[in-house]
Amino acid sequence: DCFVNALNEVKPSYGVNEEDLHESILGGILKYSPRIDNILQRVERDIAQLKNSQKFNFSSVLLYGPPASGKTALAAYMALKSKFPFMRMISSDEVIGMSESAKVQYIDNTFRDAYKSPLNLLIVDDIEAIIDYVPIGPRFSSVILRALMTRMKKSPPEAHRLIVLATSSNYRLIKNLDVLNCFNDEIPVNNLSSLNELENVMIETQFGGADTDMPKRVVAKLLEVFPDGKVNIPIKKVLFNIDTSKFSSDPADELVQLTVESNHPQ
Amino acid sequence: DCFVNALNEVKPSYGVNEEDLHESILGGILKYSPRIDNILQRVERDIAQLKNSQKFNFSSVLLYGPPASGKTALAAYMALKSKFPFMRMISSDEVIGMSESAKVQYIDNTFRDAYKSPLNLLIVDDIEAIIDYVPIGPRFSSVILRALMTRMKKSPPEAHRLIVLATSSNYRLIKNLDVLNCFNDEIPVNNLSSLNELENVMIETQFGGADTDMPKRVVAKLLEVFPDGKVNIPIKKVLFNIDTSKFSSDPADELVQLTVESNHPQ
Amino acid sequence: DCFVNALNEVKPSYGVNEEDLHESILGGILKYSPRIDNILQRVERDIAQLKNSQKFNFSSVLLYGPPASGKTALAAYMALKSKFPFMRMISSDEVIGMSESAKVQYIDNTFRDAYKSPLNLLIVDDIEAIIDYVPIGPRFSSVILRALMTRMKKSPPEAHRLIVLATSSNYRLIKNLDVLNCFNDEIPVNNLSSLNELENVMIETQFGGADTDMPKRVVAKLLEVFPDGKVNIPIKKVLFNIDTSKFSSDPADELVQLTVESNHPQ
Amino acid sequence: DCFVNALNEVKPSYGVNEEDLHESILGGILKYSPRIDNILQRVERDIAQLKNSQKFNFSSVLLYGPPASGKTALAAYMALKSKFPFMRMISSDEVIGMSESAKVQYIDNTFRDAYKSPLNLLIVDDIEAIIDYVPIGPRFSSVILRALMTRMKKSPPEAHRLIVLATSSNYRLIKNLDVLNCFNDEIPVNNLSSLNELENVMIETQFGGADTDMPKRVVAKLLEVFPDGKVNIPIKKVLFNIDTSKFSSDPADELVQLTVESNHPQ
Amino acid sequence: DCFVNALNEVKPSYGVNEEDLHESILGGILKYSPRIDNILQRVERDIAQLKNSQKFNFSSVLLYGPPASGKTALAAYMALKSKFPFMRMISSDEVIGMSESAKVQYIDNTFRDAYKSPLNLLIVDDIEAIIDYVPIGPRFSSVILRALMTRMKKSPPEAHRLIVLATSSNYRLIKNLDVLNCFNDEIPVNNLSSLNELENVMIETQFGGADTDMPKRVVAKLLEVFPDGKVNIPIKKVLFNIDTSKFSSDPADELVQLTVESNHPQ
Amino acid sequence: DCFVNALNEVKPSYGVNEEDLHESILGGILKYSPRIDNILQRVERDIAQLKNSQKFNFSSVLLYGPPASGKTALAAYMALKSKFPFMRMISSDEVIGMSESAKVQYIDNTFRDAYKSPLNLLIVDDIEAIIDYVPIGPRFSSVILRALMTRMKKSPPEAHRLIVLATSSNYRLIKNLDVLNCFNDEIPVNNLSSLNELENVMIETQFGGADTDMPKRVVAKLLEVFPDGKVNIPIKKVLFNIDTSKFSSDPADELVQLTVESNHPQ
Ligand SMILES: Nc1ncnc2c1ncn2[C@@H]1O[C@H](COP(=O)(O)OP(=O)(O)OP(=O)(O)O)[C@@H](O)[C@H]1O
Ligand SMILES: Nc1ncnc2c1ncn2[C@@H]1O[C@H](COP(=O)(O)OP(=O)(O)OP(=O)(O)O)[C@@H](O)[C@H]1O
Ligand SMILES: Nc1ncnc2c1ncn2[C@@H]1O[C@H](COP(=O)(O)OP(=O)(O)OP(=O)(O)O)[C@@H](O)[C@H]1O
Ligand SMILES: Nc1ncnc2c1ncn2[C@@H]1O[C@H](COP(=O)(O)OP(=O)(O)OP(=O)(O)O)[C@@H](O)[C@H]1O
Ligand SMILES: Nc1ncnc2c1ncn2[C@@H]1O[C@H](COP(=O)(O)OP(=O)(O)OP(=O)(O)O)[C@@H](O)[C@H]1O
Ligand SMILES: Nc1ncnc2c1ncn2[C@@H]1O[C@H](COP(=O)(O)OP(=O)(O)OP(=O)(O)O)[C@@H](O)[C@H]1O
Ligand SMILES: [Mg+2]
Ligand SMILES: [Mg+2]
Ligand SMILES: [Mg+2]
Ligand SMILES: [Mg+2]
Ligand SMILES: [Mg+2]
Ligand SMILES: [Mg+2]
Repeated sequence: DCFVNALNEVKPSYGVNEEDLHESILGGILKYSPRIDNILQRVERDIAQLKNSQKFNFSSVLLYGPPASGKTALAAYMALKSKFPFMRMISSDEVIGMSESAKVQYIDNTFRDAYKSPLNLLIVDDIEAIIDYVPIGPRFSSVILRALMTRMKKSPPEAHRLIVLATSSNYRLIKNLDVLNCFNDEIPVNNLSSLNELENVMIETQFGGADTDMPKRVVAKLLEVFPDGKVNIPIKKVLFNIDTSKFSSDPADELVQLTVESNHPQ
Repeated sequence: DCFVNALNEVKPSYGVNEEDLHESILGGILKYSPRIDNILQRVERDIAQLKNSQKFNFSSVLLYGPPASGKTALAAYMALKSKFPFMRMISSDEVIGMSESAKVQYIDNTFRDAYKSPLNLLIVDDIEAIIDYVPIGPRFSSVILRALMTRMKKSPPEAHRLIVLATSSNYRLIKNLDVLNCFNDEIPVNNLSSLNELENVMIETQFGGADTDMPKRVVAKLLEVFPDGKVNIPIKKVLFNIDTSKFSSDPADELVQLTVESNHPQ
Repeated sequence: DCFVNALNEVKPSYGVNEEDLHESILGGILKYSPRIDNILQRVERDIAQLKNSQKFNFSSVLLYGPPASGKTALAAYMALKSKFPFMRMISSDEVIGMSESAKVQYIDNTFRDAYKSPLNLLIVDDIEAIIDYVPIGPRFSSVILRALMTRMKKSPPEAHRLIVLATSSNYRLIKNLDVLNCFNDEIPVNNLSSLNELENVMIETQFGGADTDMPKRVVAKLLEVFPDGKVNIPIKKVLFNIDTSKFSSDPADELVQLTVESNHPQ
Repeated sequence: DCFVNALNEVKPSYGVNEEDLHESILGGILKYSPRIDNILQRVERDIAQLKNSQKFNFSSVLLYGPPASGKTALAAYMALKSKFPFMRMISSDEVIGMSESAKVQYIDNTFRDAYKSPLNLLIVDDIEAIIDYVPIGPRFSSVILRALMTRMKKSPPEAHRLIVLATSSNYRLIKNLDVLNCFNDEIPVNNLSSLNELENVMIETQFGGADTDMPKRVVAKLLEVFPDGKVNIPIKKVLFNIDTSKFSSDPADELVQLTVESNHPQ
Repeated sequence: DCFVNALNEVKPSYGVNEEDLHESILGGILKYSPRIDNILQRVERDIAQLKNSQKFNFSSVLLYGPPASGKTALAAYMALKSKFPFMRMISSDEVIGMSESAKVQYIDNTFRDAYKSPLNLLIVDDIEAIIDYVPIGPRFSSVILRALMTRMKKSPPEAHRLIVLATSSNYRLIKNLDVLNCFNDEIPVNNLSSLNELENVMIETQFGGADTDMPKRVVAKLLEVFPDGKVNIPIKKVLFNIDTSKFSSDPADELVQLTVESNHPQ
Repeated sequence: DCFVNALNEVKPSYGVNEEDLHESILGGILKYSPRIDNILQRVERDIAQLKNSQKFNFSSVLLYGPPASGKTALAAYMALKSKFPFMRMISSDEVIGMSESAKVQYIDNTFRDAYKSPLNLLIVDDIEAIIDYVPIGPRFSSVILRALMTRMKKSPPEAHRLIVLATSSNYRLIKNLDVLNCFNDEIPVNNLSSLNELENVMIETQFGGADTDMPKRVVAKLLEVFPDGKVNIPIKKVLFNIDTSKFSSDPADELVQLTVESNHPQ
């Protein structure tokens, strides 16, 4: 745990890193449900308050929901939309191979960087991954967790404003770890819940191309399996299934089958 | 755990650090309930005894209560009021990134600094955070805990007087860790417990501005949800809700809704 | 855990390492059951999608099944068949003697190497072994696991494509560790399940040589022990048994006996 | 755990350190009960045996009882009374910030110092604190514990005599850790157990000053709360309460209230 | 865990180390039961296959049985009989005082050495001891275990052949740790199970010397204690008992008594 | 854990260290029961076998019994009686302050020293203390334990003979840790079990001096408390009690009282 090495491991990091954020929304933000607009508006309100409040120069927001439901994409989208002069993302792939203390240093440095511009936005992506959580044990780095919690509760120095958008796939864990106290707002992100929403995704992604009836046909077939039209599939999986289907001789049929396999009955 | 590095990590720290204390009471100390004055008077008595006692030159006081209930603000307020020549705060954000032994060194050094002036006041803010406590495990640094306990029981050298104001959100933990033995006095800090108290906060913060009836209207609407007028909301959340509401087209309505969402039924 | 040492421990590694892959299929890929072709076609489809998708430049596939059932051989076979310009295997014997942090570095470096060519294929062989899993405790390196999970979810930079073929003998563990979320496709690999399949292996390996009736005779004798013709033996064990039998005076009899001993009743 | 650093951390320590011992009995030794004299006589006998025995040149004595009951003060008082040429106290505040191995070294060195004079007395104050015990886990340093146990059982070299006075607030722990085997004598120290004892303390401390009836009045009022006259309060708390009361307008009333709050019903 | 130190701790080791192997069979290999020949033949067959197989250049065999039953002696005996140009033994006494990582290095180096000759034999003696297993906890080095498992499953490079003979006294542990998958063959070694076998040992060791009836007399007396003639005593204990008896005035009687004391009823 | 430091911490140690052994029997070996002679003879036989055996050049013997029952004194006495050219004692006070790896090195070096003379005797005193055992957890150093076990099972090189005398107060622990397999002989050491034995000790130590009836009087009084004459007191405690009594005005009465207090009812 040599301090000097730890320093070397930590890359200096200043200013906006828009590239990373763009990479997180390569699949776009499809409006397959009114829920999507609700989420976007709620984050927008939180950002507006942070910008304009006369009392508070700090706010932190949690986006939580099942794996692959779109949490990171939504946070990145709103970050880009905020046009804040400083925006960055803390994510687990940046810290692979660092010692625990170097990770803490990295997190702390990134937060301190986020005190330098008048308006700062920080995404803390996938809290579980950042604290090295694994469910067996359970195990996680309590030192990283504590550093994160301390920073996610602490206002920046006067004349600087910071909003933190954090994501997590494990709400219960976040609650049991007493991390909820860090957040001013908690926003749920859900999986696709109906064939109707699935149809919207197919339409928006032009599944079937010229054959514009294909989405309808897929839904019709799926109604045989899901008579109440209720499904539970993450948006990322839906997009992957649609992509896979294109390499099949009968894409509609393939998509039906993949959709059935991907459904998580609740 | 190299000792030399540990030394370098620890910033020297002398004299009063009033700036930090002021930051902790940016939201003021609103007198929304007679409880607030009771707390202030009790701490005042403890400080008076420490100043004037012919037998004891050391005292330590615990302020405990739910998250965001105002513990740190109350301790900081009383510290500033004491006008002691030396006052400082030990808090977790000062020690992020330090090794465990550096944290112990930091705590010990701060206490030793607090032996140098005739009258010294030390805030030990959020014991759980300082000992790196996380509820799953549970985990915490027993080395930091032991250092803290030893210092919080030990009188300073003759001719020096020290009072410690410690805060904690987890009374049960503090008790189970045998830390209660360190304190001469234990003072509970509570959440807002009634719509009446909420009204007081709205009035004191001039919620509604010119529209001075707004607090009353909010309370009236809330009585529909809480017919007995009983709520359980931390002061910090109340102040944040009031701030959020200002960015809505219908602030009263927004505040009603946010208040309902923020209530922790007991 | 000295960083400099860690660096020295990690061998640089570029380009295709076909030799290792060939070593994994010295026993060939015998088509003893239609399941084998199904597996090969499914991996082939996944590789084709990765190559041609306009939306996704990353895919990861899990091959899981009992010990010695042929997971590594099947992954290595498909890798070689892909003719990707970059293909490599991460396996536990490469990292013996490295510190935990050197292993993480090694894994991370290998993934980063796999971002350099337009088409990259990486085998992550035996996840349990790589994370130093042992069932008593249970114990494993959560740091290595987290590094692996982060990399197995992360797309390479634009203009690069990567498919990961991972293998595991412990599906339940992989599921309990939340690793399943990393995979786009999960493919089961099974043991030989019938005397018919065993006969196919004997024929393909020319057991008995000139005496082409020997396979049939072995099966006939085994039917006395397994009247329903159902067995459960890994392919690797079957091949070893056939080899052992050759050193006996009565190979058919010996093989019968070894087969009975090797069967894992379910 | 660098050995060189460990050495530097350990301050050399020779000869009598009477100052520390005096600090431990600033509140005096009040004879509020015949038990106090019994304890003092028993320790006196143990010291006399150690001084004069022809067979044993080593003895170790345990003083145990609830927190703040006066264990350290009693041990320090008897140490000073012994007038041994070498006397010292091992206590947790001396070792804050040392690494575990430095603490062991410190303890061992202090014991070795205590082999140099013909008559040596060592106080091992608060065993739990020295072994870094915390009840959750429970956790403690088994290495420090073992070093302590080994030293507390081992006779000094011939021609040197050593008596160890150890204190502990957790008899059950000491027993469960097999530490009891280290002691030749075990002496209980108790809390004040009756209003009569409380009255004695008030009289000895001249509570009320000229108003010599005040102790009686306090007792009379307390009899209303504790009709059987039984209480359970540590002497240190009693003295603090008396001191606090002096800062009240109605000291008697204040002391009654503080006493009621301080009582630990059994 | 300094890497440089680790290197220095590891002694280079090449070529046959017959001396150590001879030391393991100082008590000879007595043929007290037909089981002994069966074991020797089965290991012989495994060695023959390894030497001659056209498919497999690697094999690993487990000898398991109760403490002192003769596992190490049997493995060493067969190793010497194999006349392989390279043979060595990994045993716990070689690695005392090494750090965990140095042990892993030592094991790995020894295996790599065992890839250098055309025919190599390695004894991995007492797996539990090598992995620092102790039953309370239970505890063991999962890092050493994983290194061992990886090496005991991995074929040497082409043109090299390696057979591993491993021993263990704790079959259940080996099974629970998933180590059984490493072995191609598992051979039980048992304790002496009958007075008849005991008699054979006495005869072979010429117990009684000229008095050739003594074995019979011992058995006769023992039949009174064990009427069914069944015992359960490890061969090493039997040989020690016979040796102890020689220092008694009545060796036969002494042996009877020691035998009764040594028996492990099942 | 620096290897260089570890080396420095370990003092070289050669030849006989009779002084330490004499210190262990300052209280003599009183023949208060025929059991004492039985123990001495049994150890004597074990030493004789080791000296003269033509088959075995190694033996290890366990002396086990309750705390203070005389195990160390008996082992030291027999060691001195053996007149072996090399004899030493491994005990916990020699290794205080060493790191775990230095302790292992120390133990290993002492054993290696014990291979240098033709006849060597090693006392491993208080196995629990050497492995840093504490009952809560339970905790102990599995690395030291494994080193000890390996050495206590391993014969010295040819032409050297070694007998190990180990002591332990916790037979159940030794058994549960699988350490019993290391010993060729296990010898129980017990507490005084009857008033008759106590009388023998009083007589042998000339308790009462000229007043030769005093032992009888003490026993008479004790019979009132223990009507069946059965007690359970360790010899060391008995000797301490006798010594304490001498400092009383009524030694007989004092000894009666101390004896009653010291008794461990079974
Ligand atoms: N309405 C939408 N909301 C979110 N993501 C969308 C939406 N429409 C399309 N997407 C795409 O779906 C993908 C969502 O994946 P993303 O990684 O954001 O999910 P996640 O919940 O963060 O997953 P993980 O639990 O693995 O972190 C992105 O590629 C995104 O561009
Ligand atoms: N009467 C009051 N008592 C305490 N704080 C008040 C009061 N009135 C207004 N406040 C404001 O409310 C906020 C209380 O937040 P504070 O951080 O002190 O709570 P806390 O209990 O320490 O929270 P945490 O559990 O997170 O440590 C401060 O901004 C303070 O200025
Ligand atoms: N159809 C087949 N599928 C897989 N392997 C086959 C097949 N036919 C023959 N083999 C041979 O069987 C052996 C399978 O061993 P392999 O190591 O791949 O199994 P595994 O499941 O990876 O084992 P482990 O659980 O130990 O990792 C290889 O030697 C391979 O060449
Ligand atoms: N009879 C008495 N016995 C002991 N202490 C007394 C007595 N009379 C007055 N005192 C005073 O009471 C205080 C006892 O506190 P002390 O620290 O010795 O208690 P303790 O049991 O060691 O507490 P802790 O459990 O915190 O270690 C001292 O200030 C001492 O001077
Ligand atoms: N038939 C036999 N098989 C094995 N050992 C025998 C046989 N006959 C005599 N011996 C002797 O018995 C002793 C067996 O001891 P060995 O150390 O091999 O047992 P082990 O099972 O390895 O013990 P441990 O469980 O302690 O490792 C050796 O001295 C060996 O020479
Ligand atoms: N017959 C005896 N057997 C053993 N010790 C005796 C005997 N007679 C007198 N003694 C004295 O009793 C004391 C026994 O103490 P010793 O330290 O040997 O006990 P122990 O069992 O090793 O204690 P521990 O459990 O603390 O290690 C020694 O001082 C010894 O001289
Ligand atoms: Mg995400
Ligand atoms: Mg606070
Ligand atoms: Mg495999
Ligand atoms: Mg004390
Ligand atoms: Mg063996
Ligand atoms: Mg002893």
